[in-house]
Amino acid sequence: MIGVYDSGYGGLTVLRELQKELPDVDFVFLGDSGRAPYGGRDAHAILDLAESCVERLFEEGCRLVVVACHTVSCVGLRHLQQHYSNDNRRILGVTIPAAEAAVARHPRAVAWLGTTRTVHSRTYEVEIHKLDPALPVHGIAAPLLAPLVEEGLGNGTDAEGAQLTRLAVRRYLRHLPAETDCLVLGCTHYPLLSEAFQAELAPHIHLLDPAPVVARALSDWLRRHPEFQETGTGSLRVLCSGDPQVFQRQGSRFLGRELPTVQHISEESGRLAHRSGPQVPQGQVVREFRKF
Amino acid sequence: MIGVYDSGYGGLTVLRELQKELPDVDFVFLGDSGRAPYGGRDAHAILDLAESCVERLFEEGCRLVVVACHTVSCVGLRHLQQHYSNDNRRILGVTIPAAEAAVARHPRAVAWLGTTRTVHSRTYEVEIHKLDPALPVHGIAAPLLAPLVEEGLGNGTDAEGAQLTRLAVRRYLRHLPAETDCLVLGCTHYPLLSEAFQAELAPHIHLLDPAPVVARALSDWLRRHPEFQETGTGSLRVLCSGDPQVFQRQGSRFLGRELPTVQHISEESGRLAHRSGPQVPQGQVVREFRKF
Repeated sequence: MIGVYDSGYGGLTVLRELQKELPDVDFVFLGDSGRAPYGGRDAHAILDLAESCVERLFEEGCRLVVVACHTVSCVGLRHLQQHYSNDNRRILGVTIPAAEAAVARHPRAVAWLGTTRTVHSRTYEVEIHKLDPALPVHGIAAPLLAPLVEEGLGNGTDAEGAQLTRLAVRRYLRHLPAETDCLVLGCTHYPLLSEAFQAELAPHIHLLDPAPVVARALSDWLRRHPEFQETGTGSLRVLCSGDPQVFQRQGSRFLGRELPTVQHISEESGRLAHRSGPQVPQGQVVREFRKF
Repeated sequence: MIGVYDSGYGGLTVLRELQKELPDVDFVFLGDSGRAPYGGRDAHAILDLAESCVERLFEEGCRLVVVACHTVSCVGLRHLQQHYSNDNRRILGVTIPAAEAAVARHPRAVAWLGTTRTVHSRTYEVEIHKLDPALPVHGIAAPLLAPLVEEGLGNGTDAEGAQLTRLAVRRYLRHLPAETDCLVLGCTHYPLLSEAFQAELAPHIHLLDPAPVVARALSDWLRRHPEFQETGTGSLRVLCSGDPQVFQRQGSRFLGRELPTVQHISEESGRLAHRSGPQVPQGQVVREFRKF
């Protein structure tokens, strides 16, 4: 069983590609939607969140966890690997496969679009420069794009929503250096804005979606690590820390098909607890006091 | 010393009015920017966040805390009051003063714009119906508006940004019932979009910003509770859980003037710790493992 972790729904665009590439593998997806978005948060707050999610996936019985979130992958992957990886447990991210795929195209210059935290980390620059130290790399923080996708705008038939999205995309692409010929979508939400990108990008600029690249990289990794290979039935469980009904509804747009029943997991003292707490969505909420 | 708590920068629009109304009072503002935005999160997650922030303000020596955030005020004010209020400590919110001000205008119908969680709580409906059970009340969740403000769009000279903002505002105002003649800005970010609202709203619809209303309500409350009156020097301290440089830069737009030096506070096991942790904004972050 392979765990896939994301801050919210976005990682389902990665899961979709993983399932295509590895149809017999059983997956558990954990979307931390109750504490999302991560993109504007402190580095240490992101480590706290990531620890609790990765621990929960290991407790679910996963031996391998794919961090589908670019923000976590850029900021905290090394931390997670140093503290949780051993002979029986591994954690893989999305940044290195994406950097490899970008460099393999021999571009003149690469640009990277992501959350504020992803771009500020400069991790993609580090990873690309390990492979090609002279390649110009430019990061663009695009904090409006994920909220636009979550609001249901982007690809689709809503003309006014499409106009709003194109304006926002145009605003960010204005910062593209002139020589750029490869643009990496460094956030799992952005594939749902592909129509706006295609409309606003010059035709010679290649739009790189890391999701299928990550799926092929995982498949290669499993061939090189047969001890982590498992054959299942292609099952899928989905856990989330936010509202499971909302997750189920929103998630289908990202996965490209209906989700199975989504299980709610609660947060307790900063960790994701096992008890499935009651959802109390309406009105003032008063609870018994917990001492920390 | 009065504490003012918000999920991020937005509450500075409330603080501005409080300082105008009470120029001699000393204030401590706590913006939980490292864990913002709250608007899409679980009710119980919001209680966790609010507890830690309110506790920190009491530890700072405040006896009175104003919850400037509409999301916390709608979801968790009663919880906070039940657990922390006593003869020496009080917690006040923004929802009841805003509801009173709306009803006092004798409108035909009230609409309320806010975050998803604020609107789903239906707390404003409850509070308005306590005062006028027959008044139609309509909530509109507008999750894109706060991110637009945080991105620096809205009021100002950026024509393209203004167009983007107006499109988003128009999209949400389309849901206004026809008889609406009072629109409450139920999020502390929205006063920075006043130009877009004025451009898109029919002229007979009154735009109600709760911030000055809350300031007058606090002033009245202090007159009725002289034991909580304090005369200070009009000083201001600002604490935040996110990046203090960003907070300082962003915050001045909300406060309408420069902020004093912003102090960073860290999160530890879900509480806001006293130690001022080092900011590690770039690259992969690896830290010693903490057992919970």
